[in-house]
Amino acid sequence: MYRSHNNGELNAAFINKEVTLAGWVQKSRDKGFMIWVDLRDRYGITQLIFDEQRTDKAVFEKAKSLGREFVIQVKGTVIERESKNPNMPTGDIEILVSELTILNEALLPPFTIEDETDGGEDIRMKYRYLDIRRNPVKNSLLFRHKVTMEVRKYLSDLNFCEVETPYLIKSTPEGARDFVVPSRMNEGQFYALPQSPQTFKQLLMVGGMDKYFQIVKCFRDEDLRADRQPEFTQIDCEMAFVEQEDILNVFEGLTRHLLKEIKGIDVTEFPRITYDYAMKTYGNDKPDIRFDMKFGELNAVAQHKDFGVFNSAELVVGIAAPGCASYTRKEIDALIDWVKRPQVGASGMVYVKCEEDGSYKSSVDKFYDQEDLKKWAEITNAKPGDLILVLSGNADKTRTQLSALRMEVATRLGLRKPDEFAPLWVVDFPLLEWDEESGRYHAMHHPFTSPKPEDFELITTEPGKVRANAYDMVLNGNEIGGGSIRIHDKELQSRMFDLLGFSKEEAENQFGFLMNAFQFGAPPHGGLAFGLDRLVAILGGQETIRDFIAFPKNNSGRDVMIDAPSIIDNKQLEELHIKLK
Amino acid sequence: MYRSHNNGELNAAFINKEVTLAGWVQKSRDKGFMIWVDLRDRYGITQLIFDEQRTDKAVFEKAKSLGREFVIQVKGTVIERESKNPNMPTGDIEILVSELTILNEALLPPFTIEDETDGGEDIRMKYRYLDIRRNPVKNSLLFRHKVTMEVRKYLSDLNFCEVETPYLIKSTPEGARDFVVPSRMNEGQFYALPQSPQTFKQLLMVGGMDKYFQIVKCFRDEDLRADRQPEFTQIDCEMAFVEQEDILNVFEGLTRHLLKEIKGIDVTEFPRITYDYAMKTYGNDKPDIRFDMKFGELNAVAQHKDFGVFNSAELVVGIAAPGCASYTRKEIDALIDWVKRPQVGASGMVYVKCEEDGSYKSSVDKFYDQEDLKKWAEITNAKPGDLILVLSGNADKTRTQLSALRMEVATRLGLRKPDEFAPLWVVDFPLLEWDEESGRYHAMHHPFTSPKPEDFELITTEPGKVRANAYDMVLNGNEIGGGSIRIHDKELQSRMFDLLGFSKEEAENQFGFLMNAFQFGAPPHGGLAFGLDRLVAILGGQETIRDFIAFPKNNSGRDVMIDAPSIIDNKQLEELHIKLK
Repeated sequence: MYRSHNNGELNAAFINKEVTLAGWVQKSRDKGFMIWVDLRDRYGITQLIFDEQRTDKAVFEKAKSLGREFVIQVKGTVIERESKNPNMPTGDIEILVSELTILNEALLPPFTIEDETDGGEDIRMKYRYLDIRRNPVKNSLLFRHKVTMEVRKYLSDLNFCEVETPYLIKSTPEGARDFVVPSRMNEGQFYALPQSPQTFKQLLMVGGMDKYFQIVKCFRDEDLRADRQPEFTQIDCEMAFVEQEDILNVFEGLTRHLLKEIKGIDVTEFPRITYDYAMKTYGNDKPDIRFDMKFGELNAVAQHKDFGVFNSAELVVGIAAPGCASYTRKEIDALIDWVKRPQVGASGMVYVKCEEDGSYKSSVDKFYDQEDLKKWAEITNAKPGDLILVLSGNADKTRTQLSALRMEVATRLGLRKPDEFAPLWVVDFPLLEWDEESGRYHAMHHPFTSPKPEDFELITTEPGKVRANAYDMVLNGNEIGGGSIRIHDKELQSRMFDLLGFSKEEAENQFGFLMNAFQFGAPPHGGLAFGLDRLVAILGGQETIRDFIAFPKNNSGRDVMIDAPSIIDNKQLEELHIKLK
Repeated sequence: MYRSHNNGELNAAFINKEVTLAGWVQKSRDKGFMIWVDLRDRYGITQLIFDEQRTDKAVFEKAKSLGREFVIQVKGTVIERESKNPNMPTGDIEILVSELTILNEALLPPFTIEDETDGGEDIRMKYRYLDIRRNPVKNSLLFRHKVTMEVRKYLSDLNFCEVETPYLIKSTPEGARDFVVPSRMNEGQFYALPQSPQTFKQLLMVGGMDKYFQIVKCFRDEDLRADRQPEFTQIDCEMAFVEQEDILNVFEGLTRHLLKEIKGIDVTEFPRITYDYAMKTYGNDKPDIRFDMKFGELNAVAQHKDFGVFNSAELVVGIAAPGCASYTRKEIDALIDWVKRPQVGASGMVYVKCEEDGSYKSSVDKFYDQEDLKKWAEITNAKPGDLILVLSGNADKTRTQLSALRMEVATRLGLRKPDEFAPLWVVDFPLLEWDEESGRYHAMHHPFTSPKPEDFELITTEPGKVRANAYDMVLNGNEIGGGSIRIHDKELQSRMFDLLGFSKEEAENQFGFLMNAFQFGAPPHGGLAFGLDRLVAILGGQETIRDFIAFPKNNSGRDVMIDAPSIIDNKQLEELHIKLK
């Protein structure tokens, strides 16, 4: 062992003890007659001291040569520090070094290994191993480990069994693009990497496994938007003999457990709202409910007056920004400019100041009197001091715009607090969504999702109105998990593929094994999957997932550290029976 | 919830309670006026009773229609059973059913869902979801989960951090064949699936992660021998600032913990033997030491007599089969036939019976007297009643043959007890092995393995004699894990690639990122990996890994259940910039 202790554990209790430490030189201060070195490892920093008076001359000289990030081993005595640092666990002591071994030298790092680094994203990714030495990245990885340990403990204690499903599976053109793997032993054929273990977990239910989970890598070959990775990790779960309510309870329990164990937070409320309610009230299906600002629909009170813009709109809808009646003209104009940005796309915004004296002052005073505006305030739940912001136009678009505005206002008001957690379930998702481009319905969740029994009849008459036993868990404005009760009946599954435009042959080719399995005694079952990368980032109070992934890829799907993907040998191509185009 | 209890938990304490159960019909016995149904789920079997006298007529009639593997839900009362079954946890009670719902019907399964099934390997793989309903497979998967939970707990408690390394990495022609993944976004380039996270875990050490582990899928595109899978799971570990001894201690601890927690066994001894000793004493580097039968080298006492076969042999070596002096001529001939099989390849076998009276009777009495044979007995540690079996010829081949014979004899004698566990370390592996075919040295472990410092000088003079800081853990005749202290110095690593026949350019192209990383302060480090599939199978007392993998592939790398690999769309090929040959 190169050390008797790590660099985070020594304190006054160890004074006069002989210790051996190892680690990296964080920094070195040479005062001529005295050299201090901060020695760092994963566990902390310990101060070393080399003293011209007390340290062997050769050791003292060697200490002068130490550069940043040198790997060293020292032996020495724990002594009390003269100027103590109460902000460090080891701040009361230092090590008077008697022996110094340089285990490895280091070139000057391309960026500083400090909490606040001078390295940009690109250079940090290229030298990710140096980036990982920095506390923010290191702690994110340790945090991720802690979360996964708690997830496993919670689920295992509930009798969930972690089962590894295969990575080399079958390509299915439905959904996102697969990554594929040419087979050497089966000429002209390919495996696909799983986008999720969906069918396998359903087969485990058919196999009687009853409660399954897996923390598992999944793969999607999609064009990468910011903060998306071609390979990502899911907490994948499935249960048999359950109804939606049972699943919601189990995973609400998991979420409560994580917030309690990881963040020390007791979640008091865990609301369940329908998809319809979410869309009408927050303008999207993953509302951030750490703050209120619910939508108020104003058609009934704002239309049929002389304001043409509202009269011609499908929807007039507003929110009350708390305490913003005092906004200056300039601040309000800034908000109007914001909603008019192409990314948001509103054509304008109406506002009403709810003055502290109970009066109203709006940008449309010409068309609406105080009584009218009072009704607006009632509907948007605006109190004296609030500022009502109103958008209008096509219903779907306006909701999306107001949702964006709601989040923007909340951000400006500091209402999106990273240390506050407000989870909820959104339930009753539509089974299908119409895709204009292909002129057919797509499964909103996936083709294995069960319609609600009470909506069965609508399947033939009004497919778009069929609700699914599907649910998402939302945390602080992010969908962190989603799932559904599955179809477990061969006929219904077959009808579903029909509805989604699969030919009999396609359905049989791609999912014949699943429908076949349903004939041999499939139990009712359902489940869900959490996106681990996102979940961990949110629990960690961060917006971006990248620091919670040890070796992420960039937006072109490249690992710039190892320089992958790369060209391969012709011999490899030949063995795989493929060639480049 | 479809049930109030599972099928393994009801007993006499629940008598008169109303319960709801769900599960599969294991079997049904219809006595006309009375029907008994065994209801099965993951947790056990509960007996249901339908009684013409006491059961509603419609329910009774429906019960008559139940077939094997139907999925049903019942409500009823727990009652005392007339003929109790003490072998079942639920054997004291049965359920007098009042309501019966058929949740799903089932076709007759293609093989019986019993512990001993009539299904062959092929049909069981095609309907793996039915196979998983059988106790032996189900229990193997639950057992695997238990093992992985204990591994994670043990390592996490020791501050090991599980870090997920990427699956889409870079292809390296060295070693086994990679599975590759064509990149859509990077035309003409490919990712590779990892054969192990070796370089990433080393980079994590450079990154200061200090103690890493991961239970992770790895991939090798090799021709599949029996009981090998193209995707397999490793417990992958790495530590910084450690020497070999530290690593052996930690993972000896893990193994002791698993044997204690999983099997209830306290391992008293955990020997460490060198590779050379293992080869000389057991004829292979993964000896089964649940039994003795160590090799005795007889050259000194058996040569220079008149027996030409031995005189011309490089090695004469024997083992003492305990208690086998009583073998009949027929039994001995069977052993001789066995060693002569092409798979073993010996040309003959000499034997010596050590009679209870202290005399010896051998197949070579013509050449050796009692004094000679007594020396043989001393060297092979044969006692009265034992049978000495001797092979001769080329040293390496003869050791391999005698090793096979040793295992065969132990199997015949019942000495390879599945409930006995004898782990050991084999250390001091050679760094390199000469490959006749390519006419160059190959890394015995991998190119990152550190030579022993005391053997550094031999690298240029006698590379084949350099020993590595490499070690294997062996359990019951199987290598279950292996690892090494790594090179952490750029110069040494570069020299190693040289030795292995890499050109400067190849080394730079494939591993430049690692050697580059070594320049920025790499700590001394090392680690190992356990093969989880094998480890779990051995702990489970099984010879084959297949039932410990939920969805294994066959020997052609096919998943016969989902029928993968398969052909993919031309559109997919086009997007990936490849075509079929």
